[in-house]
Amino acid sequence: TAGQIVRGALKDERTVMTKSCAVDLVTQTDQKVEQLIIQSAKEKFPTHRFIGEESVAAGESCILSDDPTWIIDPIDGTTNFVHAFPFVAVSIGFSINKQVEFGVVYSCLEDKMFTARRGKGAFCNGEALQVSEQADIHQAIVATEFGSSRDPAAMDHIFRSLRNILCLPVHGVRGAGTAAINMCLVASGCVEAYYEIGIHVWDVAAGSLIVSEAGGVLMDVEGGDMDLMSRRIVAANNTTIAERIVKEIVSFTLQRDDAPLQS
Amino acid sequence: TAGQIVRGALKDERTVMTKSCAVDLVTQTDQKVEQLIIQSAKEKFPTHRFIGEESVAAGESCILSDDPTWIIDPIDGTTNFVHAFPFVAVSIGFSINKQVEFGVVYSCLEDKMFTARRGKGAFCNGEALQVSEQADIHQAIVATEFGSSRDPAAMDHIFRSLRNILCLPVHGVRGAGTAAINMCLVASGCVEAYYEIGIHVWDVAAGSLIVSEAGGVLMDVEGGDMDLMSRRIVAANNTTIAERIVKEIVSFTLQRDDAPLQS
Repeated sequence: TAGQIVRGALKDERTVMTKSCAVDLVTQTDQKVEQLIIQSAKEKFPTHRFIGEESVAAGESCILSDDPTWIIDPIDGTTNFVHAFPFVAVSIGFSINKQVEFGVVYSCLEDKMFTARRGKGAFCNGEALQVSEQADIHQAIVATEFGSSRDPAAMDHIFRSLRNILCLPVHGVRGAGTAAINMCLVASGCVEAYYEIGIHVWDVAAGSLIVSEAGGVLMDVEGGDMDLMSRRIVAANNTTIAERIVKEIVSFTLQRDDAPLQS
Repeated sequence: TAGQIVRGALKDERTVMTKSCAVDLVTQTDQKVEQLIIQSAKEKFPTHRFIGEESVAAGESCILSDDPTWIIDPIDGTTNFVHAFPFVAVSIGFSINKQVEFGVVYSCLEDKMFTARRGKGAFCNGEALQVSEQADIHQAIVATEFGSSRDPAAMDHIFRSLRNILCLPVHGVRGAGTAAINMCLVASGCVEAYYEIGIHVWDVAAGSLIVSEAGGVLMDVEGGDMDLMSRRIVAANNTTIAERIVKEIVSFTLQRDDAPLQS
């Protein structure tokens, strides 16, 4: 239903607002879809918690507790949505004890439904997904994004990492314009890895399980375990590729998603 | 038929060879599709000339004369093709007196057939295309690519241009991994502009007509008329956006497609 609303809204005039900066966009459709998803889930599961991109933007807290929690990005790739660029996703993850138990990413314009349940594999429109078997970084495609910050120091880091990786060389660098779809591209074997600093928990909660259930690995950009609230991620087809990319990333730290709200 | 071969080959093992460098890829499917297209056209039009990516790679000349000429990229986005990344195109342009008279770009995995005939408009699967009306660069998405050269001087220019444009700021920078599809995204209104230094005539012949017939403009990266053989292009929705981008591009020159063959 969320996907239908997104596709329908593509034909209408889209009123675009900005959030943290001039290129951090939001539309009424983002808000409408998030409300729809939260309301539907709340009716069936009144005690569950919710972390939604637009609810957090509106001031709600973003703490991942042990309680059953729905983690929602109503439109991942809002900039793409505004431009009808073909990668736009609805992302829904569900966690218990801070561990994602299932994840759904619906690529609305491609009409691809990616799903994963812990221990049960990952699927696209019902077909099992399997990451690429490539272990040679020189034969890899790597996905990443520039993000919406234009802070010069962050840009320096982002461009240095990008150039390091491009000039290894790899086969290419791509970016769908949405973290959720980038992760589904890893799970599908179309790209070997995806990394980014600046993402939020709602961008990657569902995708992280889809990647791991397709046989892939998750890591922090400095190596070690991925932390869903840390704004940083490496998702790759295997540990060899992930660790090779980690060596080339010039990392930096952003305020965590679960940092106390500033008064 | 070319598209069917490309889609069919995605399921097979793909033998990858390299051309100019480690990330300039070619497969047997590129060569097979180009031969198919040239043979089909030759049967009907035995006096016509042909410029095909793989024929030129095999040593044939790349001179655009006034004669009727088919300009063919059998697989634009070979790297995407090798990885089953969803943007792979067959591109066929047809020129007389060095002017493109019709262009066809078939996006094989999306099953989108983009067509244009001079003076008759541009279409996708029969639906008329129209470029974006946006004239504010800050509301634009710009498409570009890193190309396959990893020459440090070229990389310096490419990264400086990219950062200049990203930090204007624009809404975003994207790249489909194929020039032909990037140009179709301009024609479709999904991105406002596409620029690149390093493309070849077969990458952009068809797309250039699709852009102009959808209401867009073509320009050299230093402004002034686009030259199909110069390896450089700006394709945009309008002159305002094109000229704004030209200001930010740090241009450089590559050996022309029609340079005399080196002995």
